Amino acid sequence: MSSGEADAERREIFMSVFFTERFAQLEPYTPGEQPQDRRYIKLNTNESPFPPSPGVTAAVEEEARRLQLYSDPESRIVTRAIAEHYGLEPEEVLVGNGSDELLNFAFMAYCDEGCPALFPDVTYGFYPVFAELNRVPMIEVPLREDFSVCIEDYLELDGTAFLANPNAPTGIALKAEEIERMLRARPDRMHVIDEAYVDFGAESVLPLVHKYENLLVIQTFSKSRSLAGARLGFAAGQAPLIRDLNTLKYSTNPYNVNRMTSAAGTAAIREDEYYRRNAQVIMENRAWTAKELKRLGFEVTDSRSNFLFARSPALPGGELYRALKKRGILVRHLKGLRLDPFVRITIGTREQMEALIRETEKLLKTEAREDA
Amino acid sequence: MSSGEADAERREIFMSVFFTERFAQLEPYTPGEQPQDRRYIKLNTNESPFPPSPGVTAAVEEEARRLQLYSDPESRIVTRAIAEHYGLEPEEVLVGNGSDELLNFAFMAYCDEGCPALFPDVTYGFYPVFAELNRVPMIEVPLREDFSVCIEDYLELDGTAFLANPNAPTGIALKAEEIERMLRARPDRMHVIDEAYVDFGAESVLPLVHKYENLLVIQTFSKSRSLAGARLGFAAGQAPLIRDLNTLKYSTNPYNVNRMTSAAGTAAIREDEYYRRNAQVIMENRAWTAKELKRLGFEVTDSRSNFLFARSPALPGGELYRALKKRGILVRHLKGLRLDPFVRITIGTREQMEALIRETEKLLKTEAREDA
Repeated sequence: MSSGEADAERREIFMSVFFTERFAQLEPYTPGEQPQDRRYIKLNTNESPFPPSPGVTAAVEEEARRLQLYSDPESRIVTRAIAEHYGLEPEEVLVGNGSDELLNFAFMAYCDEGCPALFPDVTYGFYPVFAELNRVPMIEVPLREDFSVCIEDYLELDGTAFLANPNAPTGIALKAEEIERMLRARPDRMHVIDEAYVDFGAESVLPLVHKYENLLVIQTFSKSRSLAGARLGFAAGQAPLIRDLNTLKYSTNPYNVNRMTSAAGTAAIREDEYYRRNAQVIMENRAWTAKELKRLGFEVTDSRSNFLFARSPALPGGELYRALKKRGILVRHLKGLRLDPFVRITIGTREQMEALIRETEKLLKTEAREDA
Repeated sequence: MSSGEADAERREIFMSVFFTERFAQLEPYTPGEQPQDRRYIKLNTNESPFPPSPGVTAAVEEEARRLQLYSDPESRIVTRAIAEHYGLEPEEVLVGNGSDELLNFAFMAYCDEGCPALFPDVTYGFYPVFAELNRVPMIEVPLREDFSVCIEDYLELDGTAFLANPNAPTGIALKAEEIERMLRARPDRMHVIDEAYVDFGAESVLPLVHKYENLLVIQTFSKSRSLAGARLGFAAGQAPLIRDLNTLKYSTNPYNVNRMTSAAGTAAIREDEYYRRNAQVIMENRAWTAKELKRLGFEVTDSRSNFLFARSPALPGGELYRALKKRGILVRHLKGLRLDPFVRITIGTREQMEALIRETEKLLKTEAREDA
C-alpha cells in the first residue's frame, strides 16, 4: 500500500487505555510493503538480488544445532571478524540487531533536550521517528535544490549530526573529505555517519575512526552483504563511544544478536570477495538502468547506492508506482512534498531491470496515447 | 566472574565525553558468564540441556538460503502459529527479539512519572534496569520471609505490576487464581506477567487474556523450547495492548525478529510434544536434585522452574560458586543481601545433576574436615 493508505490504516488502529501519553502521538516508521498476494519483481526495499554466499548457509546450519545455548552477549567472534576486516580493534566495534537498533542507541546516547538531532529534511525516514521516540529536539536541514547535502549548512549548528552517506532516498554521496571538514569544524559535537549503502561506490569514513573521537560510523549487512533477513549491523568508533553504546545495549537487550546471525555475519566477512563482485554487478546494472530511464525522459539523481531515485515528467511517482505494481513490479513511492514526484527503484539483476524498463516504456506509451 | 568482580570491572570502564547525562548513571544488567577458557557443566543461565527439535534445524537451513530478503516486519507466520497454539488471535500476540525486548516495550508503554513500576525486591534483575533506562519510578515490594510473593502486598499500590511467575531466582510460583484476584482488584492498572519459566510446572494466565484487558503475558522460547540462542519471545494480551507495543516496535526496530528465528519458532510450536517431554524430564531431575541437596543439608525453595535456589548452612553462596567453578561446574551467585547465601542452579541432564551433587558432597566433606 502507498504511504497515504498506510496512514489511513494507522488512524483506524487504537491504543489501549493504559498506553502512556508520552508515546501516544508517536508516528511509527512505515517499512516497505512485503505483499503476500502474488510474486513480484521486488525493487522496493533495497534488498540484494543475490543470495548469501555458501559459507553463510553452512555456518547457519552448524549453529542451528546448538540453539539451546544463549548467544555470547559480547558477540566476540563476529565483532573480531568485522574489526580485523576494517583495521579496527574489537573495542571499537559493536554489533546490533540490524543497524536500526544501533541508530536508536546513538539517538539515545548523543541527543537530549540541550543537544538536538540534526539531519537533512530528506533522508532515512527513521531519523525523525527516533528523535520523537527519545523525545529529543530535531533540526531538519533542507537539502539543496539539486537534492545534495551541503556541509556548510551544518557547520554553525549545535547538536549531533546524523548523515546517511550515500543519502536515502536520493543515493547522492558526500566525499570523505567533506565529512572530515565537518568533523574538524565541530570538534565538540558528535557525528553519526550511516553508511548503509556505502559499498556501492561511495567513500567510507571508517578509516577516520582512529583520528576523530566525534565520529561514529554505522553500517549494515542488509544491502551489499545479502543479509537483510538475518538482521546484522555494526557501529564503529573510538572505544569510549562503543562503551557508551554498550551501556545502553546491556540496559536494553544484552543478547541482542542471536547465534545464527553472528555465524552468518562472520562467514560473510570471510567471503568478502563474493559480495564485492555482487556490488560491482549492481553498480553496472545501476548505470545501465539510469541510462535507460534517461532515454525514457526520466530525471535521475547521481546515485552511489543500490537504488535509483527517479522521476518522469509524464507520470507522477504515485501513478508510476501503482501502474508498475499492477504489472508485477514493486518500486517505492515515498511521502513528502519534494519526494512525491519520484519513485525509488532498487537495483536488481539485469533481467529484473530490463523488465522494469520494458514495462515503464509501455506505460509511458499508453499515457502518451491517452493524452493525444 | 562473580557479580562483585563484574561491578569492579565496570567501574574501570569510562564513557565518552559526548554521552548524555540522562544515562550516565545507568547500571546495566549483568548477564550470566559465558566463559571461553574451558568446558564447563553449565548450570548458570537456565538454558535447556536438550538441543532444538529436528524440525527447527531443518527450518533454519531452509531459511538460510533467502537471507537477502528482509524478514516480514509483521512476523505473520510465527505469530499465527503461537496464537493458534494458545487459542488466541494473531492480533493478540507480538513476537520480539527475546522476551527482554518485549519487557522493555512494556516498561515504556505502561509506566511513566505518574505510574511507577511495581515488582518484588527479589526478582528478575532486569526490571530495575528497565525502570532506570526509561526513567520511571519503581516500587520494590519486599518478598515475604519465605521468599514468596504475597498478592495482598500489591492490592493497595498504584502503578503497573511486573511479576515473574514463577519468580526468579526463587522459582516459587503464584497460582493463576491469585493473579486473577489481583487483576480484579486493580482493574485500572496494568499487570505484566513474565512467564519465562511457566512450562516447568506452574500455571499460566494465558487463558485469562480474553477476560482481562489489564493483563499482558510475556513468554520466551529460551527455556522450555531450547531456543535461547535464537532469541524469541512473545507478548500476549488483548488487541489494544498489542497495538500499543507495535507502536513502540515500529518506532524502534520494525524488523526485530529475523527470518531464521521466525522459522525456528514456528517449527518449535509444531513439535510441541518434544518440548513437553523435555520439560517433564527436567522436572523429574529437579525433584531428584532437590532431594539430594536436602540430604546434604541444603535449604531449597519450592521451585516450579528449570532451576533450584538453594543454600547450604556450611558454605556461603559465593564460596560454593567459586569452589564448583574450580571443579568445572558453573552455577550462578547473585548479588543482593538476601540472595548472598544462595546459589541458583539450572537443572540439566541427570548426569549433570549427579556430577553437581557428587562435587558438592566432596566440597562439604573437605569443609567439615577443615573445620574439625
